[in-house]
Amino acid sequence: MSKSIRGLLKKTKSFTVNGSIWIECNGERYFGPGPVELLERINQTGSINQAAKQMQMSYKKAWEIINMVNTEAARPLVVTQTGGSSGGGSIITSEAKEIIAWHHSLRERFKAFLEKETEKLGL
Amino acid sequence: MSKSIRGLLKKTKSFTVNGSIWIECNGERYFGPGPVELLERINQTGSINQAAKQMQMSYKKAWEIINMVNTEAARPLVVTQTGGSSGGGSIITSEAKEIIAWHHSLRERFKAFLEKETEKLGL
Repeated sequence: MSKSIRGLLKKTKSFTVNGSIWIECNGERYFGPGPVELLERINQTGSINQAAKQMQMSYKKAWEIINMVNTEAARPLVVTQTGGSSGGGSIITSEAKEIIAWHHSLRERFKAFLEKETEKLGL
Repeated sequence: MSKSIRGLLKKTKSFTVNGSIWIECNGERYFGPGPVELLERINQTGSINQAAKQMQMSYKKAWEIINMVNTEAARPLVVTQTGGSSGGGSIITSEAKEIIAWHHSLRERFKAFLEKETEKLGL
C-alpha cells in the first residue's frame, strides 16, 4: 500500500474520498441512485407524475427511465393501470423492491469502502 | 447480505457494477481522474498547453484545475517556468507524483471492490 498523502495537502482543510456507483447493462448506465429514487417515489405516491414532480424531472424523462429499467428486467419493475374506478395509477413490483433493497445494501458497502479510504488519507 | 438480483434481470444481457471515485476538499470535488490525467500529461509534455490540447480541454480550464490543485496542496503540484533559454515550460513536483501514485492505488482498490460487487450480482 502506498503511504499516506495527507502531509501533501493543506492542514487546515478537510479531505475525504467520495464517489458514485451504479449498475451497467451491456456497458451502459442502467440502475443508479436516480432510478432508485424515482421508483421509491412512485411506490410512495402511486403516481409517475407526482414522483417526477417531486424530483423536478419531466414526465417524459421519468418515462424514459421507467422504459429503460423495465426493458432490461426479466419482468416489469413498474406497472401502470389506466382508467378504472381508481382512475389509474402506477405501482412498483416486488422485483423492483428487491432491486432497490439490493442497491441500498450495495451503497452501504460502498460507503464503508469510502470511509476506509478516507481514513487511509491519514487524517 | 441480500440475495443476488441476477434472476430479476434479463438473462441475455451482461450486468456489471461500475462507478467513479475522487478526493474532496471541504466537501468540494478536488482530485479525480481528470486532474490526474492533466498532471500526467504535463509531466509527459512539459507543457500545460500541450497537455490541455491532448485532452481537448481549453487552456483556461486547464489553468483552473492547476490553480485548484495547487491551492489545496501544502506545496505546489505544478510549477511553471517562464522565459529562460529553454523558453519556459511546466513541470510537476515530486508531491504531485506521490498524489498521482496514491490515486492509482486507490483506483486499483476501487476496481477490486467493483469486481467483487459485480460477482455478487450472481452472474
